Amino acid sequence: MKLQVTQENLSKALSTVGRVATNRGTLPVLANVLIKTIDNRVAISATNLDIAITRYIGSKISEQGAITVPARLVQDFVGSLPSGVIDLKLDEFKLRMKSGSYSSSINGISAEDFPVMPAISDKTAWKLPAKMVKEALQQVVTAASSDEARPVLTGVYIHSYQGQLFMVATDSYRLAEKKLGEAKQDVSLLVPANAMQDLLRIVSDSNDDVEILHDDQQVMFTVGEVELVTRLIEGNYPDYRKLIPKSFNTTAKLKKQEFASITKVASLFARESAGSVVVSADESDKALQVRSVASQLGENTSKADADVTGEGEITLNSRYLIDVLSVLNGSDVEFCFNGKLEPSLIRDPKQDDYLHVIMPLKS
Amino acid sequence: MKLQVTQENLSKALSTVGRVATNRGTLPVLANVLIKTIDNRVAISATNLDIAITRYIGSKISEQGAITVPARLVQDFVGSLPSGVIDLKLDEFKLRMKSGSYSSSINGISAEDFPVMPAISDKTAWKLPAKMVKEALQQVVTAASSDEARPVLTGVYIHSYQGQLFMVATDSYRLAEKKLGEAKQDVSLLVPANAMQDLLRIVSDSNDDVEILHDDQQVMFTVGEVELVTRLIEGNYPDYRKLIPKSFNTTAKLKKQEFASITKVASLFARESAGSVVVSADESDKALQVRSVASQLGENTSKADADVTGEGEITLNSRYLIDVLSVLNGSDVEFCFNGKLEPSLIRDPKQDDYLHVIMPLKS
Repeated sequence: MKLQVTQENLSKALSTVGRVATNRGTLPVLANVLIKTIDNRVAISATNLDIAITRYIGSKISEQGAITVPARLVQDFVGSLPSGVIDLKLDEFKLRMKSGSYSSSINGISAEDFPVMPAISDKTAWKLPAKMVKEALQQVVTAASSDEARPVLTGVYIHSYQGQLFMVATDSYRLAEKKLGEAKQDVSLLVPANAMQDLLRIVSDSNDDVEILHDDQQVMFTVGEVELVTRLIEGNYPDYRKLIPKSFNTTAKLKKQEFASITKVASLFARESAGSVVVSADESDKALQVRSVASQLGENTSKADADVTGEGEITLNSRYLIDVLSVLNGSDVEFCFNGKLEPSLIRDPKQDDYLHVIMPLKS
Repeated sequence: MKLQVTQENLSKALSTVGRVATNRGTLPVLANVLIKTIDNRVAISATNLDIAITRYIGSKISEQGAITVPARLVQDFVGSLPSGVIDLKLDEFKLRMKSGSYSSSINGISAEDFPVMPAISDKTAWKLPAKMVKEALQQVVTAASSDEARPVLTGVYIHSYQGQLFMVATDSYRLAEKKLGEAKQDVSLLVPANAMQDLLRIVSDSNDDVEILHDDQQVMFTVGEVELVTRLIEGNYPDYRKLIPKSFNTTAKLKKQEFASITKVASLFARESAGSVVVSADESDKALQVRSVASQLGENTSKADADVTGEGEITLNSRYLIDVLSVLNGSDVEFCFNGKLEPSLIRDPKQDDYLHVIMPLKS
């Protein structure tokens, strides 16, 4: 292998894929990135066996070839080089890299040892705008569970329902649902949330469409020059729609920033009680109140002006409130609930394609 | 106690002193800050028994008093409040704080339990400009040791010598010396380096003079409204001047940024060898070269243009080189050494008040 790439392109590709490389696995090659010529491009890839990411970059290639080298070292090295052309040359298993007065030799592992994801068969392909995917992922991914005891809840469920396409996640304590518009075919994909976190980083950088190609086992997202392949999670997603309350005894409409501020302040006092705060609203008071449960440290009560219908209170995990308030887009927010035992709902009153449900805590 | 302060002043004072408060001690009150009225001001203090920091703020006081409250909680709480007036009121051991629609009660510990640093007797006082202290601390503090086995090396040594005032630190692997100008009296103070780190943060914020008041046991630095008191380290500082080489076989003059870049790149390959790199210079080559010692990962050689006198090589810890190159001010740097076994010296050729010595590693 012998080729030239620009520092900018190689550095960008290494930082796109490098995050997936891992030192924690048992296979040393998983800590490496694969550098491989394919016709007149170079593919830079990393995988942790669940997820594989590849970025293609243009290159002047004099000799085809492939090698894997330690991801962190090569990323730090290329990131430290001045901009301009880098010469790469493979010498047995040593990758020699030269740029101006910087010259290094990195010990690699054979490209044949690098695990390849199985090809996707029975292909179904469709597209979504990057901007839509980015917003949906930001609003949905945090609600997924990280507890491997219930694998289906560690996924983001992309599916069609009554002709509409939805993206949903829930860890059983909270639930986020985004409507993505009309579904052009039947879809039911359960994608690992950490792959979706990687996809979010990739789409954040891009204005391209996201192309989605899948079979029963795997899905590949293509965004410009980047491909992300991940296995799908097996199992049936819970029938989450029945958890979403349809009517409410109490509704408060207020400024999103104020709701976030009073919740953050109350959460400071709620460290001993795992973040639990009491949210209450009263029509006659024209305010929403967040109160931390009295603790060894002290207690706090803060209020924000609100348009309130009805009255009542509910105990919630303040972290879940803070999470959803940070991903809503508008300046106003509507908080709706039915007493202490039923799920509460948060939404932007001006945006009907997103809703977020938070289960109450026992108080 | 009953008073009013502005959120800006209280928040600033809490962040100045809060760093010193510690949860790690055996005394719970050390995790607290002391809030105490003194005439028409409020003193906000924290201590870890070695260091005490106080910031005074203006206040409208209706009732004198004092209390201690958890540093982190009150700092986070006040930092989250909107700007404006905060009402403080002490109710037994509960500090009630109110600002607009935010209202909290923080459980305190009696001010009588808060440890007071002994008063400074036999006072000697002098002043230095904040800008000079800031530059000196930035260039000297990192060379102090963090190894408590040799307490004198964990200090910064401020002393007079032949009519000049100096600030010095060494961990025995490297040494930094800054000349502070004419000494107006005999001085010999060995100040804990972590107190000097705190002083650096305080002077970075200020244009005031630094007033220094001390006896044999303690020193107090006053910068505007902030006082830092620390115990002094006992013991004799080593006769470091004999370690500073006076003449050199090899001298290289080069751009500081280029020296820093090639050292950083070489250090990436030197992780297994605890950062050791080989620096070599050759008059005929007109370049300084930094080479990482070959390792399992690979190896690297990088060069920078330099005016070289003589030739030779020396093995150094790359971290020490990176540290000193980051605190020199000028655009050029002079690197001087005498073969593999003698200490090397780095200085700014245009600034003769600062020098940095790095001991060689065995190679």
